Amino acid sequence: MPPDPFFAGEGLDRADHLRADPAAIDTLRRRDDARELVWENGAPQVDESGCLLWQAVTSDAPLFLGLKDGAPRFSSLPDGKVPIDARAHFALLNLLDAAEAPIFAAALSLANWHRRHGFCSVCGEATLPNRGGWSRECGACGNEHYPRTDPVVIMLAEYDGKLLLGRSHHYPPGRYSALAGFVEPGETIEAAVAREIREEAGIEVADVRYLASQPWPFPSSLMIGAHARAVSDSLTIDMNELDDARWFSRDDVVRALAGGDGAAFQAPPRSAIARTLLEAWVDGLK
Amino acid sequence: MPPDPFFAGEGLDRADHLRADPAAIDTLRRRDDARELVWENGAPQVDESGCLLWQAVTSDAPLFLGLKDGAPRFSSLPDGKVPIDARAHFALLNLLDAAEAPIFAAALSLANWHRRHGFCSVCGEATLPNRGGWSRECGACGNEHYPRTDPVVIMLAEYDGKLLLGRSHHYPPGRYSALAGFVEPGETIEAAVAREIREEAGIEVADVRYLASQPWPFPSSLMIGAHARAVSDSLTIDMNELDDARWFSRDDVVRALAGGDGAAFQAPPRSAIARTLLEAWVDGLK
Repeated sequence: MPPDPFFAGEGLDRADHLRADPAAIDTLRRRDDARELVWENGAPQVDESGCLLWQAVTSDAPLFLGLKDGAPRFSSLPDGKVPIDARAHFALLNLLDAAEAPIFAAALSLANWHRRHGFCSVCGEATLPNRGGWSRECGACGNEHYPRTDPVVIMLAEYDGKLLLGRSHHYPPGRYSALAGFVEPGETIEAAVAREIREEAGIEVADVRYLASQPWPFPSSLMIGAHARAVSDSLTIDMNELDDARWFSRDDVVRALAGGDGAAFQAPPRSAIARTLLEAWVDGLK
Repeated sequence: MPPDPFFAGEGLDRADHLRADPAAIDTLRRRDDARELVWENGAPQVDESGCLLWQAVTSDAPLFLGLKDGAPRFSSLPDGKVPIDARAHFALLNLLDAAEAPIFAAALSLANWHRRHGFCSVCGEATLPNRGGWSRECGACGNEHYPRTDPVVIMLAEYDGKLLLGRSHHYPPGRYSALAGFVEPGETIEAAVAREIREEAGIEVADVRYLASQPWPFPSSLMIGAHARAVSDSLTIDMNELDDARWFSRDDVVRALAGGDGAAFQAPPRSAIARTLLEAWVDGLK
């Protein structure tokens, strides 16, 4: 079984060919079976069974998310003035059904992007949503802007059967997870993995291998999971970036994934691809 | 040997820890061994042997690219009014030494981003370069904006020993290459591969596998190369997206990579990761 991250399900039929046809989208919006996501506190809402909440379409120009078994699915554009409460959003992830996760990710990523792109970065004038919400167009200079997706590498470095995990300053007590960082302009995935481990932990790696990917809508990343072989275990930790980084044995990781007392660290939650990578490593997929 | 794309070399030591220290960057800029890239027609210039051209630092606030054997390397910010001549840039790639390619990619991607981000997308006011050119900050609302890197999937779909390749409308005569498209918000790499092949060629795929990646500075993408197994060879081509798409045998691909008369198609140039993917496929790396 290849790794199966939380946000990696099938999602909606995005029906991309309809986006360029405003009349077709307007017809879909008026259909009886059209639904729109319910938002609260800046995020799509989830019921007690973990399903997304939908309502009849009320927005004039909602985002067109796609089709579910042929039925149109939209999302309103949430009020840009609602402050983002990341803690509340993470709490939603504990409840969210995995089958709904890709829809949640698409809607929240898109909304996060619209929220920060009301103006044209080329000329400074106001932009308006276009293509059913999959772009924004400048009313002054005409430039079209597309949603931004930031590639992030997240990786397990291994040395002599032990894994390197670290703590960011904002982690809950006891949490350790995979090191991560943004892919920069001019870099490959493999170069970004090597650079981030060098910067944060002071070690060189070889044999970087891709494992799995998933979207991460905080605000709008593509998490690219990898494994790397470290050439030494002598750490020099960048304390600006990390609280701590340590080597953990396979047994430490097994017990952390099982949870409970006596675990060497608190594993990342099921929604984080870091957990998927740890599970795959324990299962021998490296 | 794993695939080795053209833009995937070592590049500079990015010395990321210096970016947040304007005084340190200013000291580097004034050093005798500091150099700045020479730009012309909106791109870094290349000499006859394929090396990047460097000169003494003349800009007051150049982009800090990093260190080469400890010596500071900068790039000026090219004039935003120079029109981009993609054809001239592609011609440079034919000349460029592979060892210089990652530096060329970083400098051109960053410049392309600065060129289109003079204004704050959150409030519409002017932004200024920050962190040695690795971000821009809004003078009005204080939001910091980071360079954008757009993940793009590019993939070989295989059925019964044949590869699916397509022609975009802007390709030179005879050129066929791997299908490609942007990863959208809410998608995994694997889902984007499957969706693009479905949209452009009307077929379903399974077993998507990552092969290699490289930056592509036109304007600022991360190309993510993959292989997918098609479940049928019956094509429905989206003529809005493609001129044509066809199945090619291993022998067709071998002869196209060798070039010359009698080849079934014109293969992509060495700078394109599509060519690396084709070479890897012929070599049996799938």
